Amino acid sequence: MRDLFAGDAQRFERFSLSAATLTLDYSRNRVDATTMALLFALARERGVEAERDAMLTGEPVNVTERRAALHTALRVPEGTPVYHEGRDVMPEVHAVRSRMLEFAERVRSGRWRGYRGAQITDVVNIGIGGSDLGPRMACAALGAHAHPAVRMHFVSNIDGAPLSAMLATLQPDRTLFVIASKSFTTQETMTNAATARRWFLESGAGEADIARHFVAVSINTRGVTEFGIDAENMFGFWDWVGGRYSMWSAVGLPIAISIGADGFRALLAGAHAMDRHFAQAPLESNMPVVLALLGIWYRNFFDAGTVAVAPYAQSLADLPAYLQQLEMESNGKSTTRDGAPVSTRTGSVIWGAPGTNGQHAYFQLIHQGTDLIPVDFILPLRASHALPEHHRLLVANCIAQGRALMIGRDEREVRRELEAAGLRGELLERQVPHRVLPGNRPSNTLLMDTLTPESLGALIALYEHKVFVQSVIWNINPFDQWGVELGKCIAGRVLMELESNLMPGENFDASTRALVARARVAGV
Amino acid sequence: MRDLFAGDAQRFERFSLSAATLTLDYSRNRVDATTMALLFALARERGVEAERDAMLTGEPVNVTERRAALHTALRVPEGTPVYHEGRDVMPEVHAVRSRMLEFAERVRSGRWRGYRGAQITDVVNIGIGGSDLGPRMACAALGAHAHPAVRMHFVSNIDGAPLSAMLATLQPDRTLFVIASKSFTTQETMTNAATARRWFLESGAGEADIARHFVAVSINTRGVTEFGIDAENMFGFWDWVGGRYSMWSAVGLPIAISIGADGFRALLAGAHAMDRHFAQAPLESNMPVVLALLGIWYRNFFDAGTVAVAPYAQSLADLPAYLQQLEMESNGKSTTRDGAPVSTRTGSVIWGAPGTNGQHAYFQLIHQGTDLIPVDFILPLRASHALPEHHRLLVANCIAQGRALMIGRDEREVRRELEAAGLRGELLERQVPHRVLPGNRPSNTLLMDTLTPESLGALIALYEHKVFVQSVIWNINPFDQWGVELGKCIAGRVLMELESNLMPGENFDASTRALVARARVAGV
Repeated sequence: MRDLFAGDAQRFERFSLSAATLTLDYSRNRVDATTMALLFALARERGVEAERDAMLTGEPVNVTERRAALHTALRVPEGTPVYHEGRDVMPEVHAVRSRMLEFAERVRSGRWRGYRGAQITDVVNIGIGGSDLGPRMACAALGAHAHPAVRMHFVSNIDGAPLSAMLATLQPDRTLFVIASKSFTTQETMTNAATARRWFLESGAGEADIARHFVAVSINTRGVTEFGIDAENMFGFWDWVGGRYSMWSAVGLPIAISIGADGFRALLAGAHAMDRHFAQAPLESNMPVVLALLGIWYRNFFDAGTVAVAPYAQSLADLPAYLQQLEMESNGKSTTRDGAPVSTRTGSVIWGAPGTNGQHAYFQLIHQGTDLIPVDFILPLRASHALPEHHRLLVANCIAQGRALMIGRDEREVRRELEAAGLRGELLERQVPHRVLPGNRPSNTLLMDTLTPESLGALIALYEHKVFVQSVIWNINPFDQWGVELGKCIAGRVLMELESNLMPGENFDASTRALVARARVAGV
Repeated sequence: MRDLFAGDAQRFERFSLSAATLTLDYSRNRVDATTMALLFALARERGVEAERDAMLTGEPVNVTERRAALHTALRVPEGTPVYHEGRDVMPEVHAVRSRMLEFAERVRSGRWRGYRGAQITDVVNIGIGGSDLGPRMACAALGAHAHPAVRMHFVSNIDGAPLSAMLATLQPDRTLFVIASKSFTTQETMTNAATARRWFLESGAGEADIARHFVAVSINTRGVTEFGIDAENMFGFWDWVGGRYSMWSAVGLPIAISIGADGFRALLAGAHAMDRHFAQAPLESNMPVVLALLGIWYRNFFDAGTVAVAPYAQSLADLPAYLQQLEMESNGKSTTRDGAPVSTRTGSVIWGAPGTNGQHAYFQLIHQGTDLIPVDFILPLRASHALPEHHRLLVANCIAQGRALMIGRDEREVRRELEAAGLRGELLERQVPHRVLPGNRPSNTLLMDTLTPESLGALIALYEHKVFVQSVIWNINPFDQWGVELGKCIAGRVLMELESNLMPGENFDASTRALVARARVAGV
């Protein structure tokens, strides 16, 4: 990359592009014009454009489940129809969204009251996976836009510790629970919901009060009403919205409560702007496509197994976990859409933590380890706090890390620096090889002016489409997740063993038997 | 692994071991007795025992910095000398610890008062990297043992947003800041500390009051006293304690404040028990050695690039980030201790999130992706909350995931299940390949009875020694981190550019120039 930069003063202009409030600098990659041309040719050959159009127009691109993947429809503004199996889905989309946003505004304004007449001060979202990560990430990211008097909480894990600890801090008559489970049967969510419900009733509230303090994001009317929730306060979505693509639907209710209806609409508008860019821009200037192809380049041509995501904004601390689900659940597949084994590596491990924290932790390995680890830096240029000297250091560090990864430090430079510091002879020679940084390590930098609902929407949609484009190139279905079923099924059997008095079943392996036995001894 | 389990009813007994409150089940790995024997022979050939002894006895095992790595001395009980360069370091260790624990107890008991006479209700640790991750992780992990009326907070990032938001919730006269920076010059820490100090003074406190509300973990007496901190409340440590091995030193002050002096001593005792096991057990029954060798097996013989850590305890949510620094900063190296390029892959990417959350996010890829990803499950068998049905489900899920990864589901089994569910013909055939799970995916399960200071100490020491053993096998120095310097140095130059009015320097590459220009336009 040193040579590529030295040979081309226009390299930034050539390898950067802007769309939907975002700028992507991809000049710090091991590519030249020929590489990119070949990658675009690969995308065309694999039918990225046709598949993109098929997804956006509601074709059943989720082939194993014979479903559409129309999360983009959730971002389409009023007045534009979107057809699914011959029917315009937008009236229904807008109807649910109107109810959902109206409810959010009632909570925000204090018009929605608890059963004793108090305003709601705490909202607890109970959901897991796609019903947790999106609202959790977005509420944290947009904390600067949050309602000042309504605190948002998120419970996902079946572990009873976080729920117990949280309930101890809440007032039942001022708390609203959002139970998010499409089927209203998700084990973790229903167990946590049942405990919250019991806590609420034990505080002195009656069954009839449940409807003031619990609402649902679900389509299981019977389950929801049996729980005690008013069907009026059940907000649904459709089988063409996958869990990890659902924060744009009623699953986003906590986001709407936190940042308001206008903020939620701006989030959708930002995502929609990215959708239009994805739909319309030629592959060569199409941001999700470029990001996807760079990922393919390192994954399949350099054998990179992971991608690090380093947001230089603490409020985006949950973004790596969000993208981890988005990418790993979507593209963690080994079977092509036709049912054949894949012949290349597919989805990689997505991980990371905000800068500058990461610089004091995992960056050592990215700089000097033996593996190539591409990094996505994400940098909002303006801060929403009043500590400009902090922000200037944050920005300087982000820009510097990308340069350090790219340029490295060779033996000659190390030697010069050590000599300048007064080192000589054997002491110097012994240090030199340890201080060399190979450089030539790739990174993207995603700039936005400010972290707003709009730019966050665009950012998430960008990664959604990146994941989709990669799935097309690999010819896998990013919209199913069969791999998680077996664990659930075995957990049911282990649970039965834990609850029984018999010896652990002979059908289990020796490890499972021994672990179950120990758990029983411990009184689990 | 199916065959290995089928062929050996004693496989759990053969491939599990207990030490220092922990049990490691490593039977769900692709190893048999021969594999393990060869791996133990490798460890012997690479001199693991001699290097271990050299580390534990204060030899300068940190060869590039010519220092010892004596963090284990911090765990040695009173009465046993530990020599470093001919001198017993323990009197000094105990002296600092006594002062530190006494201070912690004064805060806990309310004897230490703010400048207006109020008790301390909030403690804010300001530190980054090793001065943050350990105390943060341990305080969260041991939340069930925490002081009920003293809240712990952690600020690390240079980003001003978290500090601003936090200060808005605190009362200056009831808040104690712990400034943790050995040199008292770390950019992030000193910037955050300066802002906290300004906030404190702007609240109406005087310069003389600083000493009641700020203490330091540092060795820079001059810097500390100039800040306004009483040198009596400066707690130091030694150059034979690396940042990422420092939570056992005065860096652990927030832990001591949270769980008390006895709790902190139990944490040290747990680690010391693991140290003794590491020092004394034959390699064949040495838990850190076994864990290290399994890692080497997958890293160097199966080309695994990552290890997933899945604690089945939400309170261990920060453990993956802690282990990420421990392992990636230690073993993210490409140069041998002799200065030659390494000839094998070294440290891997450590990542993960608590179960059961991960099951609804990244586990899909571990089950059905194209890469081999070994998993470490960590499972406390007893919970410290009063929701047994939650805990039973948590335990069942943990045990089940390891079995699911190991056993998978083959075509025959899938077909049988789908037929039982009524599927036939083409519909069935089309689904089968997508529902197959290859299995044969390895995992370790680390059991402990309860998550206590003692078991946490043992767990962290286990991973410290694992990392060390791997470094010996790779012949790299796990105790330096030269790779992070260049970024700091470039950040200084970028900062100068941001603060100047001149055009971005010609010495920068086109990407850095363009990013700096955009930051300046945005008013950074």
